[in-house]
Amino acid sequence: MPLGFETIVFKDHKLKILDQSLLPSRVLYHDLATPEQVADAIRTLKVRGAPLIGVTAAYGIALAAINSTSKDYKSLKKELKPIFNLLKNTRPTAYNLFYALKRMEKVCMDRSNGLSLRLLKEAEKIREEDIELCNRIGENGVKILSVISQQLTVNSQPSTLHVLTHCNAGALATCGIGTALAPIYKAKEIGIDVSVFVPETRPWLQGARLTTWELQKSGVPCTLIVDSVRGYILYKKGVDVCLVGADRIAKNGDVANKIGTYTLAVLAKENSIPFYVVAPSTTFDTQIETGSEIIIEQRAEDEVREFQGMKSAPPDIPVFNPVFDITPAKYITGYITEKGVK
Amino acid sequence: MPLGFETIVFKDHKLKILDQSLLPSRVLYHDLATPEQVADAIRTLKVRGAPLIGVTAAYGIALAAINSTSKDYKSLKKELKPIFNLLKNTRPTAYNLFYALKRMEKVCMDRSNGLSLRLLKEAEKIREEDIELCNRIGENGVKILSVISQQLTVNSQPSTLHVLTHCNAGALATCGIGTALAPIYKAKEIGIDVSVFVPETRPWLQGARLTTWELQKSGVPCTLIVDSVRGYILYKKGVDVCLVGADRIAKNGDVANKIGTYTLAVLAKENSIPFYVVAPSTTFDTQIETGSEIIIEQRAEDEVREFQGMKSAPPDIPVFNPVFDITPAKYITGYITEKGVK
Repeated sequence: MPLGFETIVFKDHKLKILDQSLLPSRVLYHDLATPEQVADAIRTLKVRGAPLIGVTAAYGIALAAINSTSKDYKSLKKELKPIFNLLKNTRPTAYNLFYALKRMEKVCMDRSNGLSLRLLKEAEKIREEDIELCNRIGENGVKILSVISQQLTVNSQPSTLHVLTHCNAGALATCGIGTALAPIYKAKEIGIDVSVFVPETRPWLQGARLTTWELQKSGVPCTLIVDSVRGYILYKKGVDVCLVGADRIAKNGDVANKIGTYTLAVLAKENSIPFYVVAPSTTFDTQIETGSEIIIEQRAEDEVREFQGMKSAPPDIPVFNPVFDITPAKYITGYITEKGVK
Repeated sequence: MPLGFETIVFKDHKLKILDQSLLPSRVLYHDLATPEQVADAIRTLKVRGAPLIGVTAAYGIALAAINSTSKDYKSLKKELKPIFNLLKNTRPTAYNLFYALKRMEKVCMDRSNGLSLRLLKEAEKIREEDIELCNRIGENGVKILSVISQQLTVNSQPSTLHVLTHCNAGALATCGIGTALAPIYKAKEIGIDVSVFVPETRPWLQGARLTTWELQKSGVPCTLIVDSVRGYILYKKGVDVCLVGADRIAKNGDVANKIGTYTLAVLAKENSIPFYVVAPSTTFDTQIETGSEIIIEQRAEDEVREFQGMKSAPPDIPVFNPVFDITPAKYITGYITEKGVK
């Protein structure tokens, strides 16, 4: 990894994960040995980001199979069934989780020998594909950034390209160089002068804690803002393009992504700033017609009433904490995937 | 005060203030004896809210005059000059500060005896007027809430009126029952079933810390959300009306208010939800044609890099922290003042 860290690595029958709940204060890795530990890591956001959740869950199945004492195909398959359910029920919104588990289920349908090893190989394949998807997404996205950047050139002098993102759809959300941040890393590689506005992304502060951390590590200049400053910057035309990730995309193009994405899309359209959704094609859920069918995860009230144990509101105040929202397709300029831009 | 607290009280040659930087964890009052202490309390947000800043600054001048050893009009007036400058330079955006200080300056122009006492009386008068302004604003605003509430009635059954506010434009921002929250308190008084969505309002969490606290004290049901959830709720038509305060209003109706107000106004318009600015007429700055002339205060970077003293981002990450934004008049349904609605 060019960024100097890996989000997950499978080694010695264990899944080593970077604990994203502690960043940026502590860089700590955990060794997960059981699918229960994997499910817990996903549920408690130690591992997060739609593509990474998918790969991690696949390894959860592989771990269960490798550590199993079942002696034949039938008993192993039976043993894995509740593990699939356990992992499916960790988070409801990201489609990549269900996509990855479906692939693992497909491997289970093959009755030939060595199911454990085949499951591990499939998990590794999903991981390698994710790295490759990120690269191709970056290559497709940087074409758009190049065009926008060239339009900024004044009297042959290149001007800084200002990108506004949301949450963390970067290397930390994948096994590769990220989705929404991939075009930015590629832009830096080819010498585009790029700078990123990073909204802190309440309540879990993925922007403040994670996106700043990985951009800083890679030497991409960035500026941290509270989520409400997005409107101010867009109104002042301080942004050239918005790039966000996606957790699930419906057939009509509606996008489920981190809470605040809809707000950003409305503000971008109001101020005529292009707004791109950047995600692998595995994020498209062909079973769902529109965004209204997507289940929106609600998380704990204390995520809003406190931060890192510090109370920020009366302890008994009611809280509404949806962590995703739906952005209707009409606000989206285009979708950047590994296949191209549409 | 019906809410069981007073934001500031002048007593025994001292200004007693409720320290809003510590709420809701601690309810602590400070006795301020000098204008320097008053300026510091405004600068460090112990006292905040546009109308309250104005009244507090007026008492700062009164304190200086009362404690002065100057023996004649001329020397006292000379002594007060730097105090006026000190207080004017505490915060740049709220117009009420300059309005109140202008009134105190006018009192200083009168060469007759007893300037100290006249300054104290003027400060008390500004405070009493503020209480009265809040009441009248509440009475004018509740007429609008009544109409909207009646439209919600289904089969003669009244339905809950859902109000979305931002920051704290409540009793804590004034000497009375607030500005944007005044119509809500009046609505409760006359038996309207009202419930309030309270955005936490990063970076300083006025919503989470202050608005929840005073609404809870007064028995108004409320729900705390992160700022980005405003878009989600408006899109889902979960809000009937938006009520926000103002720090300064230009001649053309553009409004400077807490960062995130512009975003809320755009979202409200996009979803056809009425959006009212609620403020005393002393917030209108007739010297300024449009919002673009209003100075926007930038505050410390650590307000964004930390969350109540807990680090939430890399310590050296650059931050952009404007704490107000400008909402163009075209997004505003109406202005509720003590004079009526326009």
